[in-house]
Amino acid sequence: MVKDLPNLADFRHSQEVQIRFNDIDILGHVNNIVYFAFYDLAKARFLEAVRKGNIDFRRVECVIADIHNTFIKQIRFGDEIEVKTRCTRLGEHSFTLQQCIVEIPTQEIRSVCETVMVCFDPDTGRSTAMTPELRAALIEYERLPVD
Amino acid sequence: MVKDLPNLADFRHSQEVQIRFNDIDILGHVNNIVYFAFYDLAKARFLEAVRKGNIDFRRVECVIADIHNTFIKQIRFGDEIEVKTRCTRLGEHSFTLQQCIVEIPTQEIRSVCETVMVCFDPDTGRSTAMTPELRAALIEYERLPVD
Amino acid sequence: MVKDLPNLADFRHSQEVQIRFNDIDILGHVNNIVYFAFYDLAKARFLEAVRKGNIDFRRVECVIADIHNTFIKQIRFGDEIEVKTRCTRLGEHSFTLQQCIVEIPTQEIRSVCETVMVCFDPDTGRSTAMTPELRAALIEYERLPVD
Amino acid sequence: MVKDLPNLADFRHSQEVQIRFNDIDILGHVNNIVYFAFYDLAKARFLEAVRKGNIDFRRVECVIADIHNTFIKQIRFGDEIEVKTRCTRLGEHSFTLQQCIVEIPTQEIRSVCETVMVCFDPDTGRSTAMTPELRAALIEYERLPVD
Repeated sequence: MVKDLPNLADFRHSQEVQIRFNDIDILGHVNNIVYFAFYDLAKARFLEAVRKGNIDFRRVECVIADIHNTFIKQIRFGDEIEVKTRCTRLGEHSFTLQQCIVEIPTQEIRSVCETVMVCFDPDTGRSTAMTPELRAALIEYERLPVD
Repeated sequence: MVKDLPNLADFRHSQEVQIRFNDIDILGHVNNIVYFAFYDLAKARFLEAVRKGNIDFRRVECVIADIHNTFIKQIRFGDEIEVKTRCTRLGEHSFTLQQCIVEIPTQEIRSVCETVMVCFDPDTGRSTAMTPELRAALIEYERLPVD
Repeated sequence: MVKDLPNLADFRHSQEVQIRFNDIDILGHVNNIVYFAFYDLAKARFLEAVRKGNIDFRRVECVIADIHNTFIKQIRFGDEIEVKTRCTRLGEHSFTLQQCIVEIPTQEIRSVCETVMVCFDPDTGRSTAMTPELRAALIEYERLPVD
Repeated sequence: MVKDLPNLADFRHSQEVQIRFNDIDILGHVNNIVYFAFYDLAKARFLEAVRKGNIDFRRVECVIADIHNTFIKQIRFGDEIEVKTRCTRLGEHSFTLQQCIVEIPTQEIRSVCETVMVCFDPDTGRSTAMTPELRAALIEYERLPVD
């Protein structure tokens, strides 16, 4: 479980997400599975921003290895929400993204997620070292200290 | 199959819809099932506009009896699209909605749908006559001739 | 709207489908969008049976041009259902599939769908004449009279 | 990330899950979001088995507070899979479920998930102590040592 909520000022990237009528479950809330669809869209848009649009979604360079989400408060149809995304770790073969689902008007955090992305070679179907291009783009976008 | 494309000038209601990354199928297009999620969201927003926000989504007053969609051109991740919705028929127990999925910048029609909605009494679980409130609201919103 | 219900004895192909917990909407029924996911799975399995397993799902040979569904009775979590599929028309460039969602124990029809499939050349991205292989396989599977 | 894979002999409950054609993403694999739909169905069926069918899915007694999944190997259309579920922790207000997605013929683990469920009072909308009935049912089903 998440102990300390992230500081929203640490996030540079935000993606507004649209709730669909069929996202609502029998209890009247956004179903838990839909959160991962929100995160997924925000990841794609984050990586597109990091790569300055220079991205081919048919050619994967990383896959999700691990995803850990803490649900904080429910989301209802009609709520205005955004997903904030940042890179919190850069490894040799993988990196970590932290994401929050935030209610826009109140900036209240509804859910916090940590995802480990593993770099992937679509030709071999195996994990691989991060390309220098992706590493440089993540460092530049996030203004990370170079390791 | 739709023979004549609708005239977009006949539609008063529009709802922009957001494509999610997981809406894309193995062929790189928005999966055909997702079209119905787009229509569904637009229907909810149309009825909310018709009722001037005076709507309780937990208390259904109509259900879908029949849906007929013609796919005209594929949709890709990154396309900007909207759904246009209008009421084309008012019956005793049912009404018909016509909807188009339109690419916003070009106003090109990608898909045309016709849905028969049947008025429904949640207490009995059966179809029922349309309430005078819904009838009046549809007539007013669409400026339909009174029958 | 469907006037006459199909005769289930006319269907050779059946695919049992599994209801997921998140298929259920705020009203406690299987959401209308999910019906199209059921039909889609059954279509894939039908075409696989017609082609005797000789099918590459990454290489499309037909796309959905038109889909028309009549909802007859709602489906609940826990219902045991199957989709029955048959080919009812063979054209030069297209064919029609009829499908029913049926409750298994009672053989009660819950929904009836008609889909026009158009043959498609993935290399050109355009519709094309039906391949002789697909035509022969559909005729053989359905024991259709040769035209 | 999961360090040690669970021992499948420790799981009493199994739920076969059906892959839908639209679960497959642009890469030809089951999309990561669908895993959570598989887990969700298995959780509902597990709780139904634990309560011996004495369960009302419209009346929630627990909600998901935290979910942590490690993806081990991709799933393709046509794979036969099941979800194994067990309760690994019983607290005052919450309990933990461990789940695995397993390929049936090989019993190979494709994904491992841990979910914290919090007991919930639908009348107050707040978390509450676990009911003695649920506690007793979980202890009996899992043959847990009484704490």
